[in-house]
Amino acid sequence: MAKKWVYTFEEGQASMRNLLGGKGANLGEMTSIGLPVPPGFTVTTEACLAYLDFGETFAEGMWDQVVDGMKDLSKKMGREFGDNSDPLLVSVRSGARISMPGMMDTILNLGLNDESVESLAAKAGDRFAWDSYRRLVQMFGKVVLNVEGLKFEHFIEQIREKEGVKSDPEVSAEGWKTVVQQFKDLIKKETGTEFPQDPWVQLEYAVAAVFKSWNGAPAINYRNATGIPHDLGTAVNVMAMVFGNVGDDCGTGVAFTRNPATGEIELFGEYLFNAQGEDVVSGARTPLKVADLEERAPEIHERMMEVSSLLEKHYREMQDMEFTVEHGKLWMLQTRNGKRTAAAAVKIAVDMVAEGLISKEEAVGRIEAGQIDMLLHPRFDAKAMADAEVLTQGLNASPGAAVGVVYLDADTAQAKAQAGEAVILVRPETTPDDVHGMLAAKGVLTQRGGATSHAAVVARQLGKPCVAGCEDISIDFAAGQFSVGDVVVKVGDVISLDGGTGRVFLGEIPTVAPSFDDQPDLQRILSWADDIRRLQVWANADDPEQATRARRYGAQGIGLCRTEHMFLGDRTEKFQEAILAHQSGDADEFERVLKEILLPLQRDDFHGIFKSMDGLPVIIRLLDPPLHEFLPSLEELIAEVATLKATGKSDAAKEHLLAMVEDMHEFNPMLGLRGCRLGITMPSLNKMQVRAIFEAACDAAKEGVTVKPEVMIPLTSHVNEMNKIQPLLVEVAKQVMQEKGIEIEYKFGTMIEIPRAALTAGEMAEVAEFFSFGTNDLTQMTFGLSRDDAERKFLLRYADPDDLNILPVNPFQAIDQVGVGRLMEIAVTEGRATRPDLEVGICGEHGGEPSSIDFCHRIGLNYVSCSPYRVPIARLAAAHAVLKEQGKK
Amino acid sequence: MAKKWVYTFEEGQASMRNLLGGKGANLGEMTSIGLPVPPGFTVTTEACLAYLDFGETFAEGMWDQVVDGMKDLSKKMGREFGDNSDPLLVSVRSGARISMPGMMDTILNLGLNDESVESLAAKAGDRFAWDSYRRLVQMFGKVVLNVEGLKFEHFIEQIREKEGVKSDPEVSAEGWKTVVQQFKDLIKKETGTEFPQDPWVQLEYAVAAVFKSWNGAPAINYRNATGIPHDLGTAVNVMAMVFGNVGDDCGTGVAFTRNPATGEIELFGEYLFNAQGEDVVSGARTPLKVADLEERAPEIHERMMEVSSLLEKHYREMQDMEFTVEHGKLWMLQTRNGKRTAAAAVKIAVDMVAEGLISKEEAVGRIEAGQIDMLLHPRFDAKAMADAEVLTQGLNASPGAAVGVVYLDADTAQAKAQAGEAVILVRPETTPDDVHGMLAAKGVLTQRGGATSHAAVVARQLGKPCVAGCEDISIDFAAGQFSVGDVVVKVGDVISLDGGTGRVFLGEIPTVAPSFDDQPDLQRILSWADDIRRLQVWANADDPEQATRARRYGAQGIGLCRTEHMFLGDRTEKFQEAILAHQSGDADEFERVLKEILLPLQRDDFHGIFKSMDGLPVIIRLLDPPLHEFLPSLEELIAEVATLKATGKSDAAKEHLLAMVEDMHEFNPMLGLRGCRLGITMPSLNKMQVRAIFEAACDAAKEGVTVKPEVMIPLTSHVNEMNKIQPLLVEVAKQVMQEKGIEIEYKFGTMIEIPRAALTAGEMAEVAEFFSFGTNDLTQMTFGLSRDDAERKFLLRYADPDDLNILPVNPFQAIDQVGVGRLMEIAVTEGRATRPDLEVGICGEHGGEPSSIDFCHRIGLNYVSCSPYRVPIARLAAAHAVLKEQGKK
Repeated sequence: MAKKWVYTFEEGQASMRNLLGGKGANLGEMTSIGLPVPPGFTVTTEACLAYLDFGETFAEGMWDQVVDGMKDLSKKMGREFGDNSDPLLVSVRSGARISMPGMMDTILNLGLNDESVESLAAKAGDRFAWDSYRRLVQMFGKVVLNVEGLKFEHFIEQIREKEGVKSDPEVSAEGWKTVVQQFKDLIKKETGTEFPQDPWVQLEYAVAAVFKSWNGAPAINYRNATGIPHDLGTAVNVMAMVFGNVGDDCGTGVAFTRNPATGEIELFGEYLFNAQGEDVVSGARTPLKVADLEERAPEIHERMMEVSSLLEKHYREMQDMEFTVEHGKLWMLQTRNGKRTAAAAVKIAVDMVAEGLISKEEAVGRIEAGQIDMLLHPRFDAKAMADAEVLTQGLNASPGAAVGVVYLDADTAQAKAQAGEAVILVRPETTPDDVHGMLAAKGVLTQRGGATSHAAVVARQLGKPCVAGCEDISIDFAAGQFSVGDVVVKVGDVISLDGGTGRVFLGEIPTVAPSFDDQPDLQRILSWADDIRRLQVWANADDPEQATRARRYGAQGIGLCRTEHMFLGDRTEKFQEAILAHQSGDADEFERVLKEILLPLQRDDFHGIFKSMDGLPVIIRLLDPPLHEFLPSLEELIAEVATLKATGKSDAAKEHLLAMVEDMHEFNPMLGLRGCRLGITMPSLNKMQVRAIFEAACDAAKEGVTVKPEVMIPLTSHVNEMNKIQPLLVEVAKQVMQEKGIEIEYKFGTMIEIPRAALTAGEMAEVAEFFSFGTNDLTQMTFGLSRDDAERKFLLRYADPDDLNILPVNPFQAIDQVGVGRLMEIAVTEGRATRPDLEVGICGEHGGEPSSIDFCHRIGLNYVSCSPYRVPIARLAAAHAVLKEQGKK
Repeated sequence: MAKKWVYTFEEGQASMRNLLGGKGANLGEMTSIGLPVPPGFTVTTEACLAYLDFGETFAEGMWDQVVDGMKDLSKKMGREFGDNSDPLLVSVRSGARISMPGMMDTILNLGLNDESVESLAAKAGDRFAWDSYRRLVQMFGKVVLNVEGLKFEHFIEQIREKEGVKSDPEVSAEGWKTVVQQFKDLIKKETGTEFPQDPWVQLEYAVAAVFKSWNGAPAINYRNATGIPHDLGTAVNVMAMVFGNVGDDCGTGVAFTRNPATGEIELFGEYLFNAQGEDVVSGARTPLKVADLEERAPEIHERMMEVSSLLEKHYREMQDMEFTVEHGKLWMLQTRNGKRTAAAAVKIAVDMVAEGLISKEEAVGRIEAGQIDMLLHPRFDAKAMADAEVLTQGLNASPGAAVGVVYLDADTAQAKAQAGEAVILVRPETTPDDVHGMLAAKGVLTQRGGATSHAAVVARQLGKPCVAGCEDISIDFAAGQFSVGDVVVKVGDVISLDGGTGRVFLGEIPTVAPSFDDQPDLQRILSWADDIRRLQVWANADDPEQATRARRYGAQGIGLCRTEHMFLGDRTEKFQEAILAHQSGDADEFERVLKEILLPLQRDDFHGIFKSMDGLPVIIRLLDPPLHEFLPSLEELIAEVATLKATGKSDAAKEHLLAMVEDMHEFNPMLGLRGCRLGITMPSLNKMQVRAIFEAACDAAKEGVTVKPEVMIPLTSHVNEMNKIQPLLVEVAKQVMQEKGIEIEYKFGTMIEIPRAALTAGEMAEVAEFFSFGTNDLTQMTFGLSRDDAERKFLLRYADPDDLNILPVNPFQAIDQVGVGRLMEIAVTEGRATRPDLEVGICGEHGGEPSSIDFCHRIGLNYVSCSPYRVPIARLAAAHAVLKEQGKK
């Protein structure tokens, strides 16, 4: 008996992807769960490989099985393939194991010929029949017979011109009839053969063409570029054609099983009577809401509800469905997991847990960290919005508030965004060619298209605010502007978009942070994430207010309290005087300012933070930046002094100041006299800070607060630095506790932010009781990059796949795991070898970035610390790291 | 039978150091090879430990063995210990396994008392006898009875005052007699006991005191500081006293077996008739040359020649001997390997190989890298010296030319030297307290002391030029000056010292490099080193002249040819114009300048270098520094423009230039747009350079030169940088070879100078055909130090053991093996795992530093590359690395 080369859709299922390809397996799955899928069958990938291996001949028995499949199809559809009086038409599509979009071909309407087109015309109308026939001839000519596609397009342009119409749907039946003849002549001329009139011959050629396309140059190049193996082969799917545009009892639509913007449980989508699939997606005609079908076509609506429920139960996910109604019968053409807004994703996940469809772990695994980010995006200030002038209103296609400068094309929008501008992309409608501009933009405004238009779908996926289908606007590319009535908005003007309401405003509207407290679904997801994750999430907070917010967002400690801001503002002048006194050798004056002025201020700040974080650890970093950062700029002083001198108004004090600043100037301040180097050369500075920390901690402890101060010594490169400074500071801590008559828990530790500190972590841990990775500086030094310069000079080009494409990602955004990460691993392993209970965390900006959090989980950190706003993201990402480890994500 | 606690010198030998201590073992060794050592014995370290363990009582049998030892001594000396009429006097000295200088004590003249002093006076004179007795009482009182030393000094000062003399040797016999009584009264008053008159009691107390001194606070502190174990104990050496100051047939001297300044084979040293040891070393009396003894005391001279020969044969090293002649009999008190100048070291090593005393390996092992440095030190220009005004002349104590600013104390000299000043230390004479100043100084000038004075010995050892015993000069500390007759030289004035002739000049005399070719002994040593070493030595050379010198010094390749100087000088202006054209977007003008002006200049330079290095590899680094280094300084431009504006003379061109320079300014240029980042963002620059390299190489090859160009891509951090730029450059190389119609051998590789490059060396080596460690930058980034700033700001303090003492060594001078070195090891191991024949070298300044060269050998580099002047040092150090590995050094 011959091998089985052909599977009907009833025989296929999702798990047979290798044999049936992705599309074939999915059609099988849908069929097998009872969905009304047009009947069909799949010729296997093995048949393809056999065809290619044996000199492009069909494997033994394959064609017989195809013929049997067609007979089965005819029976199911009640029409005979090759019956010219009532023809059964089919589509032939390729479908590999791994999707290769655009690389392989499709032939529709196969089965039509000069005779059967007339029968079809009689049943479904002239225009439809001849349009269908010209499509078949065109696709067959191009795909099977390799006639250049542009040559077909040429004739279509001619007919449009001749009939004076702009688009294909407007071309008349007669027009298409002319075109069919032209196409057939073209094929004859180009290939020397006639377009085959025998449907079986059409089918045989089409199947062979799909097989051959696997070894076509485009497919090979695509596989080389993406690393897909060359020995998989492609399957061929043959499916009965169904038509939504053959009468008023026909139609086509797309629908989501739940509302993709809000997550509400409702059938959500659009439907067009007597239309083809493209008509809905392209946004050319304004469609009906699917919900309205309940009134207009109740049977269809009811059937869709059943299908929707069936699909959700089967896939355990919200579905995005394409369907066609042919003479009142519903046909499902496709279903897939639906794109949705962040808010919808969260609500759907929580609801599905409640419905018993998915587990809490699955719910957590389905929310992407970036979506959480979106939910905490700023919104427009309600009062400011109420007062603002509404320019126009469109469809609320993707929620969120966006303010930016108007640009009318994706390239410019991208360039301006890269240069640091906030940009709004305004387009008639969007296509895949615009996606790079959408990615770069803060928000998108389109003139045409509905809630499922390209702009809307993509914007929701990207989390960009989008107002779509705003038909009031009229775009004038030549003039570089758009207008709404009399109001003209030029390229370069600022507008504000409210994606939640669809309103567009002139100028900038201030935004406010969203309330975390008002998002119970989000909180539920995060609490489930907390149950899963092992990595703690701490926050970077410099004052009591930030600490309070961090705690509300779920922070389990403060991983980095920077003390430098405590020397700024009103305090700068005093601190400047102290620095200048010190530089002039007046150490006493320096100490006096530290003690009398700065110590009380620092103590108050610390006290507030300890109270906010009652019961949780607080890591305070000793002063890190070089002192010249607190002084006036060298460049400005040079200009000032030169100007004074040139005008004969020399100022000795100013010149003295310049001399001091010149003396303190460094060529590479990032590698300069800062961090513990300051502490070691000017110990009174750190001693004052430690005194302030412990005075505040002891006071708070006496008030009943549980304090856990951890003092962090920055920028260490050699254990002897720790040996030098730490004992001095511990001494101060003990002295303060004695003065205050109370003992508190505390730790001293160091930042690991210089490569050498990581490389000698075993020694460092002999002194340090905790490590905290300062991955910003660690990245700068490991990579030899100056963050103040590199992005501006070359780094963005390095990380741009369309430009130099040297780095897969900007290492200041996601940890460079191979280089910087290797140092981190060394430090964790060797630090813990010395001190098994060493607390290790990260406080660089990477602490809030999901791929970096996953890495931190894998190398066994105790916590990540990030900005308060990113704490929820980090909680989720830390749970994802566990799920990935368990193979559950 | 009791354990053996006491060994006569005849029973001891050098290998018994653990049991007998260093001094005891050495006295035993000298005795056993037949040297006339005063008889004596050693009480073992075990006896000390037993004493300390058992409540400070002598071990069983120990005292009996000491008494036996004393009887043996009496027999050998023909005098009885305790015989007041002809007393045998002994010294009692401690001697541990490891030398602890100054920590433990000595008692001389033990055996004297009120009665025997009179007998001694009768035989050797009153003054000698009473001086000897007061020394015993003083040392005994201080060491054994713990009376404060200052209290004794007080009485000595009184007697000097009373007698109106300045120094102890001038005090009369009566004076010392008075002092003895005062000392005895002092002891009675302070301790309540009398100074013991019984010599056996003196001996018992003295031995016990030495034992106890092992656990005295100074000794414990010293051991804690230096890491010497506490459980070693000390031995006690009891030796018969001999006296060089008891008549005109007596004397004392020090001598070297060869001339320590030149290495000539001759007895070299100084002798004083009727004198004590200290009299020679202190320089208070002007001594006789030992050579002159041949005439003045022929038997002694002959005996010394015999001893000298015996010692050299035994120790196989030049010896530095101390000896005393008592009534015509020679006694050897000490011998040790002699300090010598670099030139002497080389000559002696070469001579000893010729004499069959040592092997070539030993000869190589005995020369220190620092000594080679000295031989290649600059000397004064002969013509300039002939024309210069000689201020004065002293002893040519240590050769070499030194120019510097005069300072009169070691602390100031050190401070000024650290601040970067070239310093000459001028002192009356030097002591160990001055060594830090000598270390810091370029040269040393002393008023007193001879060729074996402290200043002379230490200066030779340190390789510092020294003029000693320059008695014409008179130092006035109060006035901060010294004078020679009428000429006054103030602190801060510049002088020049010629240590080779002993001449001192006012002002600065220009120096010239020494000729390597005129030093055949040195060349012989280095050729032996070449036979031993595995590590190749290459040189850093930027032009043909440097390359020629490097090759003469033995370089086996050019490890770093920097191309930046080729853009300086006359070429700067052109290059500036090119840069500004590029910044303004005029890429064509940039390329034109590169091609028409810079390419021919570069090609000529490379051509000369290839010719110089015929047959050897030449690594050329592509342009490395940031382009703004070729432009005017930002600070100067700001001041200029501000001045012009203030005076109403605005200059648009200048303002434009300022804007450009501002735009190109970087906050941390060390981590900025330089190295391959320039090449990648401006490929035409590197392409021009590679074209110049290959045009020059092909031209040279056609002339018959064997060229081996290696193109080095600097500052890589990611393999994709190599992937981006290297193929472009290889393309240029191939094109040039095709144009020239010749094929040459070549390599492309990269510098490893960014930590990430080392951490990803396995990937780097997939593209790079060689690695060269740029340890200057690698140290900067691994340590987070900016070389332009750190030393000035804090690094010198970090590496100063008397200041912050955080780093054992300045990591820019010697490779930090723990941190930076670990990255190097990773890079070597992982690079070679990818590409087993990967050529790996070092071209940072560390390549010429001995400890770093040893490290490079150990981690398996192919070569070190250093400045041409350091090539000989590196050749030697590379051989030392092998000897160390084999346990031969």
